[in-house]
Amino acid sequence: MIDATHDPARRSWVTSANGHDEFPIQNLPFCVFSRSNATPRIGVAIGDEILDLGALAKAGVIDASLAPACSETTLNALFATPPEARGALRQTLSAILDETAKQHAEWLTKAADCVFHLPARIGDYTDFFAGIHHATNTGRQFRPDNPLLPNYKYVPVAYHGRASSVIVSGQAVRRPNGQRKPASETVPSFGASRNLDYELELGIWVGPGNALGTPVPIADAASHIAGFSLLNDWSARDIQGWEYQPLGPFLAKNFATTISPFVVTPEALAPFRIPQAPRPEGDPAPLPHLFDAADQALGAFAITLDVLLLTPTMRATGAAPMLLARSNTSHLYWTVAQMLAHHASNGCNLMPGDLFGSGTISGPTPESYGSLLEITAGGRQPLSLSSGETRRFLEDGDEVIFRAHAAREGYVSIGFGECRGVILPAPAIP
Amino acid sequence: MIDATHDPARRSWVTSANGHDEFPIQNLPFCVFSRSNATPRIGVAIGDEILDLGALAKAGVIDASLAPACSETTLNALFATPPEARGALRQTLSAILDETAKQHAEWLTKAADCVFHLPARIGDYTDFFAGIHHATNTGRQFRPDNPLLPNYKYVPVAYHGRASSVIVSGQAVRRPNGQRKPASETVPSFGASRNLDYELELGIWVGPGNALGTPVPIADAASHIAGFSLLNDWSARDIQGWEYQPLGPFLAKNFATTISPFVVTPEALAPFRIPQAPRPEGDPAPLPHLFDAADQALGAFAITLDVLLLTPTMRATGAAPMLLARSNTSHLYWTVAQMLAHHASNGCNLMPGDLFGSGTISGPTPESYGSLLEITAGGRQPLSLSSGETRRFLEDGDEVIFRAHAAREGYVSIGFGECRGVILPAPAIP
Repeated sequence: MIDATHDPARRSWVTSANGHDEFPIQNLPFCVFSRSNATPRIGVAIGDEILDLGALAKAGVIDASLAPACSETTLNALFATPPEARGALRQTLSAILDETAKQHAEWLTKAADCVFHLPARIGDYTDFFAGIHHATNTGRQFRPDNPLLPNYKYVPVAYHGRASSVIVSGQAVRRPNGQRKPASETVPSFGASRNLDYELELGIWVGPGNALGTPVPIADAASHIAGFSLLNDWSARDIQGWEYQPLGPFLAKNFATTISPFVVTPEALAPFRIPQAPRPEGDPAPLPHLFDAADQALGAFAITLDVLLLTPTMRATGAAPMLLARSNTSHLYWTVAQMLAHHASNGCNLMPGDLFGSGTISGPTPESYGSLLEITAGGRQPLSLSSGETRRFLEDGDEVIFRAHAAREGYVSIGFGECRGVILPAPAIP
Repeated sequence: MIDATHDPARRSWVTSANGHDEFPIQNLPFCVFSRSNATPRIGVAIGDEILDLGALAKAGVIDASLAPACSETTLNALFATPPEARGALRQTLSAILDETAKQHAEWLTKAADCVFHLPARIGDYTDFFAGIHHATNTGRQFRPDNPLLPNYKYVPVAYHGRASSVIVSGQAVRRPNGQRKPASETVPSFGASRNLDYELELGIWVGPGNALGTPVPIADAASHIAGFSLLNDWSARDIQGWEYQPLGPFLAKNFATTISPFVVTPEALAPFRIPQAPRPEGDPAPLPHLFDAADQALGAFAITLDVLLLTPTMRATGAAPMLLARSNTSHLYWTVAQMLAHHASNGCNLMPGDLFGSGTISGPTPESYGSLLEITAGGRQPLSLSSGETRRFLEDGDEVIFRAHAAREGYVSIGFGECRGVILPAPAIP
């Protein structure tokens, strides 16, 4: 619902928020932060500051029903509350931060002085495959004439990922060792991945969830989504190619998944909802348990996604990161409500703080491809960088940065913060 | 190490333990139990009783370094301790329960009066595919001439499963709805699974684990395994057949996984370790990071595994469950140390309380097949039951029961307790 919290005229007494590229008063994303090794606290990004929700709860300005959840060290309890409660919290925060409200500098901490943590204890992490251009591009490398498998347009394909190795933006990623067997070799060898890649995804945080054995109807699915982050599904393509049949990716993915620390809420994104793109002629309609007219009408999002690369050479010369791709969440074949309803359709229980990845969000053209696998055609067409270097895949010291913004005429644009990680060399093999 | 705790002459003052089929004083498996809705406590099965470790900790008879872990409501903290500490605890418990020790009836609760809980908070659940006969049998249904994929003998193949839907023995399992597309139909439909199956697996509990980015050398891998249970990887074959490409099984598996409540320790299993079966001529040797001479010499286990079925008709007539298969952990192609070293070989962090499934443990002949898919050749050859009924796959009301024993000449046999679950009808489709 678009309401006064989205009013473009609304300004905050936190002056850095006014005109802020990512965190104006219209956004108010949640995060978990700490200062000086103190216990993590729940915060809200506002301009260049973090508003301490624990302090607000202690001051009695948050509704008593939500104060305990706001005083936790993770967002799980807040995610577990119904969307109406989280919507009411947004109203409260917007009013507290409004330029007409009393100023409370003591509730603020400079974001630059904060360490950010994973937003939630992630019970289970599931990675979808809803970027149809990515699915087509990668499928084409294996099956040139028939890149999409027959189930793709019926099933929001997904697999389970690893929860323990989801890390927060800024944490370095160690290149994995693993078994690689290029077509040119007859037996596999164990060593550092030669084809390390990123995947541009939207992270989706589960809200209240469902009991085991009790599916979530598609019409209710959106109410179980608590927010969104950016997600980098780091992928070792050579390990993946050798290991993934018949049970799917495993060590090629589970060495690290990076998530941005800010959780942008469905309420903040209300102005940026768009109709799900009509399916191309000839595509089947979703089966009834995955079809909801309201979700089709306004279940997608217009969020621009950028991938940037900063190489050691760029870093040494003070050059800016290079934009590798610009994509958009509108390219997803399935809505997030369809993903969630599918996931729970067999009775699988979803829990507050569970995380979904959307799948790699590529657009139809190379400028919008969400992985190097696609940009370099599996490494066969190296990419020329602004620094004069080339890349087939990621090299040690490379840093990948995702950014995202939602924008719409007549509304203040909001951002997601950064999802970034630098590649460290693989550990020595004993 | 085989020591005095395995002495077959050792007897307990808990008289039901002496001659007990599963829980003699030589076993001492951990569990989490409660009585009358009280807070769960850590216990040890001894005969028909559960020894309350929390009470022992309070009484000061457990080493101070372990008392806090023994007073928890899950086994995670105990799993996190080094194997030496858990070995010392075994010595203490064996001494306390020895028939020459002072009797403390107040530390015991009748197992029949207890509710058993999941042994640990499972951070991540990983399912391996190490039963080579199962991999061959199922592969043959898709690729008659080439059932095993080329990676099988190099990679201990695994995929991530769902942690939230791991349930404890005795909890009923609701038949999942899902998308099914038999070869005879041109488009999928959504409805109750028609091909519901069990899979006979060994559950493996992770102990201390490793930091992200730091692999576990194969020689250290066994020290990171805290214990074993029985695991039923319920599988909806029709959902699996339609969904599993290209990213592996998902909704076909994540509606429920049942685990037996008792954690049999590596220390208890010391007498039942056997050499890993030599690989057939022509098979490659494990790559160096998966090869350890000591593990090959004594890294496998001689554990007999039974699958029983109790249908509603058998239940109504008072008939005993029917033995469907008897298998053995010696049929696993990879040792549990190889599984763990592989999992961590890319730096993936394993945590105390993580759970592995071994993969379905089928033997070479139909009497030892660990799933109905194999026994009935994909449902084409219905199985005749002792009750006069037949089964292609599981029907509503069917109860599947796994039992297991380790036995060796000169030692007292130890058991795992039961892993059981009854099938409830699928939920209505709204």
